[in-house]
Amino acid sequence: MPVGALSFSLAEIAARLGGDVLGDGNIRIFRVSTLATAGEGEIAFLANRKYRSQLQTTRAAAVIVGPDAADGFAGPRIVTGNPYAYYARVAALLNPPRAGFAGVHRSAVVDSTLPDSVSVGPQACIGRDVVLGENVVVHAGCVIGDGVHIGAGSVLYPNVTVYHDCRIGERAIIHSGAVIGADGFGFAPEGKTWVKIPQIGRVVIGDDVEIGANTTVDRGALEDTVIGNGCKIDNLVQIAHNCRIGDYSVLAGCAGVAGSVTMGEHCIVGGAGMVSGHITLAAGTTISAGTLAMKSVNESGARLSGVFPAEQHEDWVRNAAHIRRLAKLAERVAELEKKLKENDTRG
Amino acid sequence: MPVGALSFSLAEIAARLGGDVLGDGNIRIFRVSTLATAGEGEIAFLANRKYRSQLQTTRAAAVIVGPDAADGFAGPRIVTGNPYAYYARVAALLNPPRAGFAGVHRSAVVDSTLPDSVSVGPQACIGRDVVLGENVVVHAGCVIGDGVHIGAGSVLYPNVTVYHDCRIGERAIIHSGAVIGADGFGFAPEGKTWVKIPQIGRVVIGDDVEIGANTTVDRGALEDTVIGNGCKIDNLVQIAHNCRIGDYSVLAGCAGVAGSVTMGEHCIVGGAGMVSGHITLAAGTTISAGTLAMKSVNESGARLSGVFPAEQHEDWVRNAAHIRRLAKLAERVAELEKKLKENDTRG
Amino acid sequence: MPVGALSFSLAEIAARLGGDVLGDGNIRIFRVSTLATAGEGEIAFLANRKYRSQLQTTRAAAVIVGPDAADGFAGPRIVTGNPYAYYARVAALLNPPRAGFAGVHRSAVVDSTLPDSVSVGPQACIGRDVVLGENVVVHAGCVIGDGVHIGAGSVLYPNVTVYHDCRIGERAIIHSGAVIGADGFGFAPEGKTWVKIPQIGRVVIGDDVEIGANTTVDRGALEDTVIGNGCKIDNLVQIAHNCRIGDYSVLAGCAGVAGSVTMGEHCIVGGAGMVSGHITLAAGTTISAGTLAMKSVNESGARLSGVFPAEQHEDWVRNAAHIRRLAKLAERVAELEKKLKENDTRG
Repeated sequence: MPVGALSFSLAEIAARLGGDVLGDGNIRIFRVSTLATAGEGEIAFLANRKYRSQLQTTRAAAVIVGPDAADGFAGPRIVTGNPYAYYARVAALLNPPRAGFAGVHRSAVVDSTLPDSVSVGPQACIGRDVVLGENVVVHAGCVIGDGVHIGAGSVLYPNVTVYHDCRIGERAIIHSGAVIGADGFGFAPEGKTWVKIPQIGRVVIGDDVEIGANTTVDRGALEDTVIGNGCKIDNLVQIAHNCRIGDYSVLAGCAGVAGSVTMGEHCIVGGAGMVSGHITLAAGTTISAGTLAMKSVNESGARLSGVFPAEQHEDWVRNAAHIRRLAKLAERVAELEKKLKENDTRG
Repeated sequence: MPVGALSFSLAEIAARLGGDVLGDGNIRIFRVSTLATAGEGEIAFLANRKYRSQLQTTRAAAVIVGPDAADGFAGPRIVTGNPYAYYARVAALLNPPRAGFAGVHRSAVVDSTLPDSVSVGPQACIGRDVVLGENVVVHAGCVIGDGVHIGAGSVLYPNVTVYHDCRIGERAIIHSGAVIGADGFGFAPEGKTWVKIPQIGRVVIGDDVEIGANTTVDRGALEDTVIGNGCKIDNLVQIAHNCRIGDYSVLAGCAGVAGSVTMGEHCIVGGAGMVSGHITLAAGTTISAGTLAMKSVNESGARLSGVFPAEQHEDWVRNAAHIRRLAKLAERVAELEKKLKENDTRG
Repeated sequence: MPVGALSFSLAEIAARLGGDVLGDGNIRIFRVSTLATAGEGEIAFLANRKYRSQLQTTRAAAVIVGPDAADGFAGPRIVTGNPYAYYARVAALLNPPRAGFAGVHRSAVVDSTLPDSVSVGPQACIGRDVVLGENVVVHAGCVIGDGVHIGAGSVLYPNVTVYHDCRIGERAIIHSGAVIGADGFGFAPEGKTWVKIPQIGRVVIGDDVEIGANTTVDRGALEDTVIGNGCKIDNLVQIAHNCRIGDYSVLAGCAGVAGSVTMGEHCIVGGAGMVSGHITLAAGTTISAGTLAMKSVNESGARLSGVFPAEQHEDWVRNAAHIRRLAKLAERVAELEKKLKENDTRG
């Protein structure tokens, strides 16, 4: 264990996070790891039956296991109903967020009155009539527009932009380069040209939302764009104007949601998954990676797919050529059926 | 109507924007809305026949309609040839851009001489030999490289980067995080390694262009990358080096255009649509959402598609498996045709 | 040749970059160009046999050719084994990077001790315990987190963010808006909610890497995310946590690599190509543009494809409908085969 490393005994961990300690509760833990790689001072976890045999061979100082695997490991262990979530909390305990800085940096430009507990990094700009909750952290280079509200405990990493009047709930984590509240993409055609439609809605983000690096969430045209509580949105995701993303939904990297989409609770969009505009996805809908959902889904829990998995280039070229002739192939089959029927009749 | 809200009478609106007022021209309007949701003090519009029946039920104070629907609403109304564009202009009238700030913020770093009418936000950086037109607004955190020219009336939202020597026309709107003029992606292979090809062209953007948040437009290798007048580009779009995008073209979110593509006027690329490098798309070409255009299009007005719309996962898995065996299926059909012909001959 | 332009004689160029000069070595060159467009004072190159006939018609002052084409041009020329790479080097010679600024700008916030040769632009922030090599250039608005190391000769364009403790090698070029080291996307489900898994790995980037504008590379969950030496990554690319990208790999614009992917040396991912999580791609694997690689590739040098190239919308709609009925079509063919066999048997 590195000198000076933050560490806790197994008993201390369980005192804070719950769970039952079996074996030596005095063993000290300073790092989380995997069953395969853990060593002295490290705690690992078993969340997937597939890896159960690793309990026999792991060199972890302690493990986190479910009740069904409590006897699979002889050393110090914590038994809990959800080992993976427990592991996440142990990792958070052992890796507290760096303060980095406290107070308002002298180079920041702040035009609102902020609670003393708020931290504002160098070169950050906070506009007028901004309301920040307790302990909000605004890192270097962020720009917070006039009239924005951000709830207690939220963290904005460097170079985030939040346009005027948007709302962000409590305990949000917004990663660098994310842009919240840029104009939705709305234009009225007039002859060859396009007349801009002012985007006068806001973005309203619930509590416990995480938004990835360089992700964009556009403000609404008339109504607000709404991101529900507990949503987790990865990097380089586009959420267009007027969308309503249900609570606890998850959007993986490079996903895109076109305008005026309504998603129920706990929807999942895989990486590079796309949702066409003006459709509704029932709660619990899953869109597979790379798939384009074009129609509304009314039943909960559906899983939609549509991407052809890559194959050898030459095989794909041949198959793609056959797809191009598929209508013709179907006609030929119909013709065969007709002939065979005639033959049978004649026969 | 909220106290102090900016408002106009219907007659005042028509005096500024044209159109014929029918009914009470003195009614005051402070907000735009939809037929379904409008109420007191709000103006709605009918642009799509589909919603015509809502004229009977709307509680809007006034509506904007085309000549064919002028009699469909009994209350105050404005009759105009293009209700949607008219609505856009009313919305702009009622929601003037916030000044936010005026002049050059004391924290900005400006190494060029600017007109007095230009606004530069906090922490913005403007390099040497930069030429800005009248009333340009450069928001907080923007970085404008040496030798850049930006035309009158353009607005750059926070944290935009424009590399050296690029040109942006008049009345541009560039949203946060956009990067104009980064190096195009050009490398010469040499053994296993890649030798960087300096990108010495510029990006040249016409007038009345809007560019979305976190969109990237690369500078040309030798020639310039050119975005025509009136183009509208959404968020997270990639435009590679040496592209020439025709006037009034529209690229929706997550679209990507590879290098040296030439697009004619008024092309449309749907969300996540992709265009392969070195091809030409005739004027008025539409690429559907999620579609990859791989070949040049010579005829105007074509619409290209190629994405399989999502279906239930199990159905798709089955269909995908059949695609994989499509060449075999085609062989089997050919074999059947041959046999049947032999049988017929024998018969 | 513009007055004051930087120029070299052909002989001076060859003295620096190698190659054999044929014809007048005193001719002065100030610009690179193409065979089709070059004129006085400009040097062009022939790298692709297809353009060989242009050697007859080009007005270039000099050309760079391979040994096989050395006699194809009568004027001044340099003969070299790799004309394209040579051209890249000539272009670099004629277009040296602009210094732009030197030293640490007074508005920058620097909390570490830097070598005198380092340049830090306006409004940039450099955290604590940061180690920068000689001649590193950090442009305006960049934010470099605590404990970051960046190797000699690297350039970070404006508004790049590097999170704490990441490592960037020598001679890196990182374009504007790129985000290195944001949290990987990891959450443990707990009931309806998601528990954040702290991301305690780093991003470790090798030497001679170029990273495009607004690209994101996430830090690892436990281990590091690793980008090998000589990798070239275009704009708007997403690299998720725990990936290991092999040396000299190339990822084109809008590509996405999901978590825990291992790619061998010299892999190529085309524009908008996607790689599913937890798979391994052997050295030299090529993923075609827009293609989703879902399975590991064990053999070197494979090329995978899977995207249907766009066709006329109506044709695609018809083909897509047939794909939807493909299982049924296959059944019909099987039925025909059965019947025909019965008929034959009966016959």
